[in-house]
Amino acid sequence: MAGSSYGTLFKLSTFGESHGEAIGGMIDGVPANFSLDLIAIQHELDRRRPGQSELTTPRSELDQVQFLSGIFEGKTTGTPIGFIILNTNVKSADYDHLKEVFRPSHADFTYQHKYGHRDYRGGGRSSARETACRVVAGAVAKQMLQSIGVQFSTYVSQVGMIAMNNKEFYSLSEIEATPVRCPDASMATQMMAHIDEIKQEGDSIGGAVQCIITGVPVGLGEPVFDKLHAELGKAMLSINAVKGFEIGSGFSSLGMKGSEHNDVFLANGQTKTNFSGGIQGGISNGMPIDFRVAFKPVATVMQTQETLDSSGNMVPFKGKGRHDACVLPRAVPIVEAMAAMVILDFYLRQKTTQL
Amino acid sequence: MAGSSYGTLFKLSTFGESHGEAIGGMIDGVPANFSLDLIAIQHELDRRRPGQSELTTPRSELDQVQFLSGIFEGKTTGTPIGFIILNTNVKSADYDHLKEVFRPSHADFTYQHKYGHRDYRGGGRSSARETACRVVAGAVAKQMLQSIGVQFSTYVSQVGMIAMNNKEFYSLSEIEATPVRCPDASMATQMMAHIDEIKQEGDSIGGAVQCIITGVPVGLGEPVFDKLHAELGKAMLSINAVKGFEIGSGFSSLGMKGSEHNDVFLANGQTKTNFSGGIQGGISNGMPIDFRVAFKPVATVMQTQETLDSSGNMVPFKGKGRHDACVLPRAVPIVEAMAAMVILDFYLRQKTTQL
Amino acid sequence: MAGSSYGTLFKLSTFGESHGEAIGGMIDGVPANFSLDLIAIQHELDRRRPGQSELTTPRSELDQVQFLSGIFEGKTTGTPIGFIILNTNVKSADYDHLKEVFRPSHADFTYQHKYGHRDYRGGGRSSARETACRVVAGAVAKQMLQSIGVQFSTYVSQVGMIAMNNKEFYSLSEIEATPVRCPDASMATQMMAHIDEIKQEGDSIGGAVQCIITGVPVGLGEPVFDKLHAELGKAMLSINAVKGFEIGSGFSSLGMKGSEHNDVFLANGQTKTNFSGGIQGGISNGMPIDFRVAFKPVATVMQTQETLDSSGNMVPFKGKGRHDACVLPRAVPIVEAMAAMVILDFYLRQKTTQL
Amino acid sequence: MAGSSYGTLFKLSTFGESHGEAIGGMIDGVPANFSLDLIAIQHELDRRRPGQSELTTPRSELDQVQFLSGIFEGKTTGTPIGFIILNTNVKSADYDHLKEVFRPSHADFTYQHKYGHRDYRGGGRSSARETACRVVAGAVAKQMLQSIGVQFSTYVSQVGMIAMNNKEFYSLSEIEATPVRCPDASMATQMMAHIDEIKQEGDSIGGAVQCIITGVPVGLGEPVFDKLHAELGKAMLSINAVKGFEIGSGFSSLGMKGSEHNDVFLANGQTKTNFSGGIQGGISNGMPIDFRVAFKPVATVMQTQETLDSSGNMVPFKGKGRHDACVLPRAVPIVEAMAAMVILDFYLRQKTTQL
Repeated sequence: MAGSSYGTLFKLSTFGESHGEAIGGMIDGVPANFSLDLIAIQHELDRRRPGQSELTTPRSELDQVQFLSGIFEGKTTGTPIGFIILNTNVKSADYDHLKEVFRPSHADFTYQHKYGHRDYRGGGRSSARETACRVVAGAVAKQMLQSIGVQFSTYVSQVGMIAMNNKEFYSLSEIEATPVRCPDASMATQMMAHIDEIKQEGDSIGGAVQCIITGVPVGLGEPVFDKLHAELGKAMLSINAVKGFEIGSGFSSLGMKGSEHNDVFLANGQTKTNFSGGIQGGISNGMPIDFRVAFKPVATVMQTQETLDSSGNMVPFKGKGRHDACVLPRAVPIVEAMAAMVILDFYLRQKTTQL
Repeated sequence: MAGSSYGTLFKLSTFGESHGEAIGGMIDGVPANFSLDLIAIQHELDRRRPGQSELTTPRSELDQVQFLSGIFEGKTTGTPIGFIILNTNVKSADYDHLKEVFRPSHADFTYQHKYGHRDYRGGGRSSARETACRVVAGAVAKQMLQSIGVQFSTYVSQVGMIAMNNKEFYSLSEIEATPVRCPDASMATQMMAHIDEIKQEGDSIGGAVQCIITGVPVGLGEPVFDKLHAELGKAMLSINAVKGFEIGSGFSSLGMKGSEHNDVFLANGQTKTNFSGGIQGGISNGMPIDFRVAFKPVATVMQTQETLDSSGNMVPFKGKGRHDACVLPRAVPIVEAMAAMVILDFYLRQKTTQL
Repeated sequence: MAGSSYGTLFKLSTFGESHGEAIGGMIDGVPANFSLDLIAIQHELDRRRPGQSELTTPRSELDQVQFLSGIFEGKTTGTPIGFIILNTNVKSADYDHLKEVFRPSHADFTYQHKYGHRDYRGGGRSSARETACRVVAGAVAKQMLQSIGVQFSTYVSQVGMIAMNNKEFYSLSEIEATPVRCPDASMATQMMAHIDEIKQEGDSIGGAVQCIITGVPVGLGEPVFDKLHAELGKAMLSINAVKGFEIGSGFSSLGMKGSEHNDVFLANGQTKTNFSGGIQGGISNGMPIDFRVAFKPVATVMQTQETLDSSGNMVPFKGKGRHDACVLPRAVPIVEAMAAMVILDFYLRQKTTQL
Repeated sequence: MAGSSYGTLFKLSTFGESHGEAIGGMIDGVPANFSLDLIAIQHELDRRRPGQSELTTPRSELDQVQFLSGIFEGKTTGTPIGFIILNTNVKSADYDHLKEVFRPSHADFTYQHKYGHRDYRGGGRSSARETACRVVAGAVAKQMLQSIGVQFSTYVSQVGMIAMNNKEFYSLSEIEATPVRCPDASMATQMMAHIDEIKQEGDSIGGAVQCIITGVPVGLGEPVFDKLHAELGKAMLSINAVKGFEIGSGFSSLGMKGSEHNDVFLANGQTKTNFSGGIQGGISNGMPIDFRVAFKPVATVMQTQETLDSSGNMVPFKGKGRHDACVLPRAVPIVEAMAAMVILDFYLRQKTTQL
């Protein structure tokens, strides 16, 4: 119940602090007898890791995943895949200044009060480093889904107030064309300039990630509490810095009437529009699944702010070390990983709906 | 795994179709030895039921909850509370026209393909009638939370494009002052006029519900996948017609810089601002929890639309029977119920964090 | 976590006290589109109910199950099956003498200390009446399993020290030939005489139930913690009055050497012997599953014993009302029900082992 | 649902094959702010490891646990404890002869059919090596339980037909006095001689482990499906080679009448006898918890037996490598570990029973 696991049939459990020996996890319920491409998994991790471009933090963690079990002769055995990622580039001294301080809008204060004891080095368990483990499991799920025709298009659609005004399925090469992972070249240029500007200010900025998933079979999702979009929402909101989630028309549905918003059927079972975002009654209808995730500006800024220390005094605090001014580009593989885990989990659940 | 349960320690499981004999459920993990006010529970159900006002559907279902177990001499025994609500006002004939038709943006199509068989009467399991059971469980949770100082303020903050532009903790009497459950009297008047207009058109309209929760102890929520706002998000997105969820600053955080968005501490451990929405690192920090939920315009409209039937033909379809042009006023107790269940569940989980 | 649910994919949750309004439950994860024989379900309940024969308690509860949801036009819809069984023959006054007394080897003392409040009438939630709900769910599971070729043979193999010395698959008619449900006619006669004797003494006696299941596909069960026999063991040990469980050779394996105990293969994949009880490494191997369950003599006896009351005084106590001197005959359908739920659950789980 | 996790609040998840890179696991729900004695944990592992004495397999695996997370400055942080144990002494060539062969009464056949692919080296996931991870988690649980006064006495009470005829709480030093871990010196001598004899024959022998737990608070266990002894039974039956479980009087209750078997109360709330084994109605009553576990003779024998290969041929097969003639001495810490996990889990659950 301590919440370090995600999924029901395909289940990831993770452990690890950002400055401990290693982070890692295990995936239980991995379908057996599937040939895994381990290089593709590492490639996903590389998309998430710090130091890929000038846009992101200059830390150059290798984030090399080591698989310890569950794979034999290149194929899954059906037993748990255990894995670790060593924390090779750990400089705990970087974080000594955090020992007695509660940084604003970080988890220092809440962890201290919840547990009575915390690993303050680099955020410990609250560090977004934990999401590397999600990327590993998501990459496994994605390979399996691709083998049954499911495809993902996940990209940065907004940075600050610079926003794309369409949402389409873009190819991976279009997305990867720029380090900001926005497939609209013109917007990408603006976004990069904006991030650079914010970085110069020692500040940070948020944005939105758009995810579109095609080829999802009809019937995934459960009707009441475990609606497909409810689970997608939880998956996304569990990612560090996420403040909002919307499926299909989302908040923009508030400006529409029912007669406009209804997705009228075509004779082939598809719908003319897709305001539903591919999900009706909590269950996939075969249309593209489409959702959007809002990331706040990250809390660590290179400006001095007053904050509270553990003795109850107000003290000046300024971030140091290596931090992203905008995490959105690195958030893309994390969003996609969580989405893949959710879809595969419901795919497996759906196999049990009839005898 | 079929998703008819919600919660981990305080767990609601529900059953029932809108036109079967009854809907009902059971709550497992109810803290023992607590004096329940059964009248207050029924009162919450009355806030959700159809036919309360001219704004909502003219059906006058009684929605009388009958408790079957788990309460003895007025107090919870710690064993499951089983309950049913009879479907007294069932006119299945109202729904014969639905037998062969897949209504647009309803769950008819997806249920048929998922299960190979469905109860087409009134939406069956996909009917929002199921949420009555959530209100029962939420009312139990709310009483327990109130006994430890937690208070809820849940109201309609937007109907169509008519939106309040502040969010505050309003009292129940302010909220209940109008049938639309918007505590801003001027906005409420506009909203009611708008709903009436939409109703005349045979159309429907969506809106947003704001929920603010005070008195939540520091430390609720789990750090990684089961972040408090992730679970709140899932809870809300599992409610029929919900398309979006945001916590604290939500999507509006995209227009802010980190230096602006950070909630700077006061010496007393509170924060000057509350863009975090009372949750940092997935864990409550003692500030008010504050989130917003988007409801699309409901799919049933009293206008003729073309749709698909089970033989693959396009046929004209027009809603009939008793439906809400705007479900927002009735959504208020449902949102509050789900929120109460989530908070109580995490409260119980937190009791196990230290030995 | 309060433990009122059983199963993972095919999941029964139950509620109800023996002297409340009703007991009941819901089954989630019921495979859809399956034609259920409701009369056969009621028939299983009739096998469990009190007052079937002179051997068992003279209470003649009807134990009529009412289905409230999840079945439409005779077929399962895939949504939860909710059901209740009214407590029609409740005479709470029968139990007033229990209000202040902790009966020996009953749950009165432990419930009082665990919950701080209890429904003392007839044992409340600790009454074996709860098992009626298990029989309902088990009967559903059994029908589904029968459709794929799984067959059950469950019978009384021992009463007191009167024990059959073989274990075979007996037909239902052989088992039901006598009220004691022992398929060996000579043993059955001795058992019935012994139970009658014990009843005259106002005492009680235990015994053993043997269960043999054929047609179980190879591959059911999970390798580590959720071994098939581990889950069967939990299922059986969760039945009131059960004190022991053994699979295959069980405790008698202690007298054997490995070279004798090994089940040597035949060329067809079957084994010459079946000391493994149809399960190797926690996973079914296609041989009959075979286990034995020990029931202690029930605690209620019609003799005076000293016991403790809630004020800490020792007081004389004598059982009254309607009780079985030997519950074994009625335990047969309960054991079979739990076994069927376990097997079906693992059958569904196994559908997700490969993509 | 693949069953690699155990527990609800205090939850162990394990991964790893006997001849992969490492085995390992993570414990979620570890109570925070507790000072762990890491040396004591390693000591428990040493009690389980092969090669401790001439009685057990000559393999001298070091079984050194490495903790990767969840412990900071000597104290638990409340976040998951991840750990690995490297497979240092792996000689996979030892197992090449197993590639195409289904050993009798092993999991080779069932794994192959369940998964379609298996790691045949040394039993892979079905190897008892997996239990080392249980010992780690159990040692953590035991330390926490000891801090609240719970004590364990776990020992070998039977080897083959050589059985102690009493059951008492023995001290650790009495148990560890001989390598066979039977606290009755005279019995221990006979057992060791018998094991030696069996080993000379190239055969194997089973036995029983007795576990007695004192200081368990009243109220642990849940009333219906998750009875304390049901969960203990599952925990024990999930250990490799276990064929039977009994609580308190167990199978011997079949020879008793209710009037004899009832545990009559004393004025202090204790009972004169303890046939219930410390559990009534599934809930601990404060008396010692007492159960017995039957281990079959292990399947690997150094004698030639005919068996099946994957091509469907019968072939001669003889075990080789390093195996225990009797696993009972090494089973002691495993039984104790599983028991400790169960008790701590229910202890945490009980903290949520009242508000």
